Amino acid sequence: MSEAAQTLEGWYALHDFRSIDWTAWKQADEGVRAAALDELHAFLKQWQAAEDAKTGSTAFYAIVGQKADFVQMHLRETLEELNEIETAFNKSTFAQFTVKTYSYVSIVELSNYMAAPGSDPMQNPEIVARLKPTLPKAAHICFYPMNKRREGNDNWYMLGMDDRRGMMRSHGMIGRQYAGKVKQIITGSVGFDNWEWGVTLFAEDALQFKKLVYEMRFDEVSARFGDFGDFYVGNLLTEEKLGQMLGV
Amino acid sequence: MSEAAQTLEGWYALHDFRSIDWTAWKQADEGVRAAALDELHAFLKQWQAAEDAKTGSTAFYAIVGQKADFVQMHLRETLEELNEIETAFNKSTFAQFTVKTYSYVSIVELSNYMAAPGSDPMQNPEIVARLKPTLPKAAHICFYPMNKRREGNDNWYMLGMDDRRGMMRSHGMIGRQYAGKVKQIITGSVGFDNWEWGVTLFAEDALQFKKLVYEMRFDEVSARFGDFGDFYVGNLLTEEKLGQMLGV
Amino acid sequence: MSEAAQTLEGWYALHDFRSIDWTAWKQADEGVRAAALDELHAFLKQWQAAEDAKTGSTAFYAIVGQKADFVQMHLRETLEELNEIETAFNKSTFAQFTVKTYSYVSIVELSNYMAAPGSDPMQNPEIVARLKPTLPKAAHICFYPMNKRREGNDNWYMLGMDDRRGMMRSHGMIGRQYAGKVKQIITGSVGFDNWEWGVTLFAEDALQFKKLVYEMRFDEVSARFGDFGDFYVGNLLTEEKLGQMLGV
Amino acid sequence: MSEAAQTLEGWYALHDFRSIDWTAWKQADEGVRAAALDELHAFLKQWQAAEDAKTGSTAFYAIVGQKADFVQMHLRETLEELNEIETAFNKSTFAQFTVKTYSYVSIVELSNYMAAPGSDPMQNPEIVARLKPTLPKAAHICFYPMNKRREGNDNWYMLGMDDRRGMMRSHGMIGRQYAGKVKQIITGSVGFDNWEWGVTLFAEDALQFKKLVYEMRFDEVSARFGDFGDFYVGNLLTEEKLGQMLGV
Amino acid sequence: MSEAAQTLEGWYALHDFRSIDWTAWKQADEGVRAAALDELHAFLKQWQAAEDAKTGSTAFYAIVGQKADFVQMHLRETLEELNEIETAFNKSTFAQFTVKTYSYVSIVELSNYMAAPGSDPMQNPEIVARLKPTLPKAAHICFYPMNKRREGNDNWYMLGMDDRRGMMRSHGMIGRQYAGKVKQIITGSVGFDNWEWGVTLFAEDALQFKKLVYEMRFDEVSARFGDFGDFYVGNLLTEEKLGQMLGV
Repeated sequence: MSEAAQTLEGWYALHDFRSIDWTAWKQADEGVRAAALDELHAFLKQWQAAEDAKTGSTAFYAIVGQKADFVQMHLRETLEELNEIETAFNKSTFAQFTVKTYSYVSIVELSNYMAAPGSDPMQNPEIVARLKPTLPKAAHICFYPMNKRREGNDNWYMLGMDDRRGMMRSHGMIGRQYAGKVKQIITGSVGFDNWEWGVTLFAEDALQFKKLVYEMRFDEVSARFGDFGDFYVGNLLTEEKLGQMLGV
Repeated sequence: MSEAAQTLEGWYALHDFRSIDWTAWKQADEGVRAAALDELHAFLKQWQAAEDAKTGSTAFYAIVGQKADFVQMHLRETLEELNEIETAFNKSTFAQFTVKTYSYVSIVELSNYMAAPGSDPMQNPEIVARLKPTLPKAAHICFYPMNKRREGNDNWYMLGMDDRRGMMRSHGMIGRQYAGKVKQIITGSVGFDNWEWGVTLFAEDALQFKKLVYEMRFDEVSARFGDFGDFYVGNLLTEEKLGQMLGV
Repeated sequence: MSEAAQTLEGWYALHDFRSIDWTAWKQADEGVRAAALDELHAFLKQWQAAEDAKTGSTAFYAIVGQKADFVQMHLRETLEELNEIETAFNKSTFAQFTVKTYSYVSIVELSNYMAAPGSDPMQNPEIVARLKPTLPKAAHICFYPMNKRREGNDNWYMLGMDDRRGMMRSHGMIGRQYAGKVKQIITGSVGFDNWEWGVTLFAEDALQFKKLVYEMRFDEVSARFGDFGDFYVGNLLTEEKLGQMLGV
Repeated sequence: MSEAAQTLEGWYALHDFRSIDWTAWKQADEGVRAAALDELHAFLKQWQAAEDAKTGSTAFYAIVGQKADFVQMHLRETLEELNEIETAFNKSTFAQFTVKTYSYVSIVELSNYMAAPGSDPMQNPEIVARLKPTLPKAAHICFYPMNKRREGNDNWYMLGMDDRRGMMRSHGMIGRQYAGKVKQIITGSVGFDNWEWGVTLFAEDALQFKKLVYEMRFDEVSARFGDFGDFYVGNLLTEEKLGQMLGV
Repeated sequence: MSEAAQTLEGWYALHDFRSIDWTAWKQADEGVRAAALDELHAFLKQWQAAEDAKTGSTAFYAIVGQKADFVQMHLRETLEELNEIETAFNKSTFAQFTVKTYSYVSIVELSNYMAAPGSDPMQNPEIVARLKPTLPKAAHICFYPMNKRREGNDNWYMLGMDDRRGMMRSHGMIGRQYAGKVKQIITGSVGFDNWEWGVTLFAEDALQFKKLVYEMRFDEVSARFGDFGDFYVGNLLTEEKLGQMLGV
């Protein structure tokens, strides 16, 4: 038996992707649309208040292409809180005009391949800040889920700890070259959703997503062991952009 | 030909995952909603009565994310009883406001890799209790179906009994480390549904699902031979929580 | 080139799985429901008449879980007759309250791996009875489609006739142990539907499906060469049970 | 680099599979149904005229099982003509009562593995007739798409021309044994649709589809290199059968 | 770690495939249809203006078969502009009569395997013109997404730069033989959508798509390393053709 890497976990995450039923939205009474927008803004305020209180964080982006019209990414202390956010949104007037397209349940995770022995990482404020982060308000978001492959000779989970640690270090060094350009949030989903990890990237320049993911693909840990789900890319929904998107 | 492991079977299981049509639910007459809730509570009483009479057991959880809004997991002596529960629910007023999203048909199973030769396990009250269990009312549930892989050199069913027994023992030892933290119900579904087993976990702390499943993934029996379906995670629906969820 | 096994074919088979639109069924006028049930009973009589006349056979079972609410399995001499049954049902009032979920087109088949050389199997009344069978009215049904695998070193169709015959003999011996417990109808679907064979099992005790399929999985012909589709399991719909199921 | 086989191309092909919305069809006004049938018959005449003028050909069959209720297979000189047929049908009254289920875009193709060097095949009237064929009005149709496999050691496109030619010759010899029983139209779809080829078979006795495809499966070119899509089987829709099918 | 090839990026691309709801379109008031067409023509003018101003380009084609009725392929400087085009179209009257079927998000890309060392490609007007191209108005379009394979011994990303460069050169030489017959636009989608590249081909003679893609399939880079998604083929929608398609 191979030794499992230690992981540290922070806030639970819910990525909630939806499309808008444009025909219904356009045909709704103006009063209904106004009520829907009021409710939506009340949610945004509430989520901002949680962010200000450091009890969670929320990102809200438009998605490009037909896979979804927008994503809400929520971070909270418990699965119960995420479920409450989801149910409250489902009951809202605006939700009547949306169609669920994809969701992802996970938890912010730091893998501890590089941990200094003997130290308690939870005493490190920098680590705690990474486990319970305030999500960036960058211009662009990228999300994809992934697995470590277990096929024939390319079986990540049959490798020894040293091999895995070496490959993850090389992997991390590519990521570090993008420091300042791409902010990366890794969430673990083993036991929670269909893939083992979710990767959420934030950047001012969307092209950096392509540069980073493409460069990593030549890294052995991705080339031999990375299996990827659907990729989503989007643009920040500021209050103004949201107004433009929903204005009819 | 490789020798099949002996298995012991108890109650049949039906996992029934559904989403709520929130728009229809909100737009329904208050009287209709009240009637729907009355019927739902009558079902809950009936299922509780079966549990009290030790003729079955039911778990009722909210599911996080878009895969479903809730799951009912029913255990009963026969497939006919499960079918009756399902049909009765389908005819209920509340069911009109739900959408079927996934189901799983299986039977509680104990594999007998560790059986003491010569003993009759059905004389063992502890074993009988595990085959016809009262489902825990833990804060969280996790469900996923799985297969043992049959691919090239990673073909579980071509291994000898000793190899399989050895790997299952190691697997069981990981599970035992989570005793008191995670309660595990294994159900067999060969011949009943699309995967070979269903795994249902219960825990007070959902993070323990991730810890357990992740640690097991490094175990050879999972690393080389485990193929997994969709993962569902959820929160206990107490009477109070159910009222909150369905209140509009 | 490897030599194809000789096969004998009998009646064509159509498995027709459907769900019930319970909301529509409940909301229909009582008169419409009565007319629908009258038509359904007329079909049942007609199918029974064909069975009595030995021109075909029909099985009608409720399915457990969300994959379907019921299956009709029809055997007839020609594809045209199956198509007529299907179209007549599609035009019926009851069909308006159903949703198609899955179907399978195949033909009753006996593989001739064990044939005595020189004998004409169609002169054997026992063989003819197996090719044009009256379907059992057992308490339970199990259906799944399957392929023989063609992957890398596990390529059934590249094996020599002797290897295949040896493995099929061992396979058949497991089946024979379940004689009296499980009745098995093999239908071939190469050129007719998406898998190569359909397997339909009938038993008084559904647990025997699991025992049989699980034990066979350790047999080389399944372990290395069996690829399986969706599994369906169900309960006999007697006139009485059908009335209960559809009563609202 | 391996050398590509020369191919000859004739008419473009569109297979258009649809289901009928039986509830809507039955509930339509008799006048609407009559108008729909008139339009449908006008199409049939038009398609027959193109067949008479040797500017195309059309086959119209009922499909057995739930995958579709019927298929129209159209052959025409250009993709524009196929698109016009499709759009005209989409705008028809009858089309309002149908649901699209599957389609396939390809072009009639002869592979030239056996070509005599130096000859110009397009001067051969027999070859031209095979490239621009009048589709048979046989009792049954069978359609499936397929790829040549490219996996590990089973990579068709990495084989040398001689190996491929030898296997295709053996393959063709099986087909020739079915001359007079099964008529085969191969259409190429590389660059046009999701598989590399479509295979359309016509026969008076549907069992010959199974015999042919099953026998070929033991041939190395299918056993090691054939990957197959969905199989459709159906019955000829003569004017009379069409009337019966659509009569309510 | 293998070295990633340098790439050059130009305009972002959105391929937007839709079907028409013909029943709704036919049943709409003539005034609504006229308004829808007016809006659609206004979009076409706007997109033409962007093309004239060299700030983007748009292709508009009918698709053959059921996968879609038409595709719009938009090129723009930013993801925000593509999102605005998409949202504006979603809010239009014509969009109410369409159903989304598929979309693809990518960016025009030139791989730099053949780059002369020391030169700055962005100073080369020919290269800039290829990165920000005016899309051809050829009679036919072909689109498919693709990956470079990472499986066992066929793992593109584990090859050395020299091996990859040699294979890509051979690949490019096939493409060059089709110069003047097929115009090819490669768009990269790593980090943006589910495949690594999108390939969009334009030709006056659709048969050239088949010839090109088939010939390339025997090239090692495709034979061993090419995994392909769905293929779409279509016909140019001139103003006149569009009028014919939408006329009822």
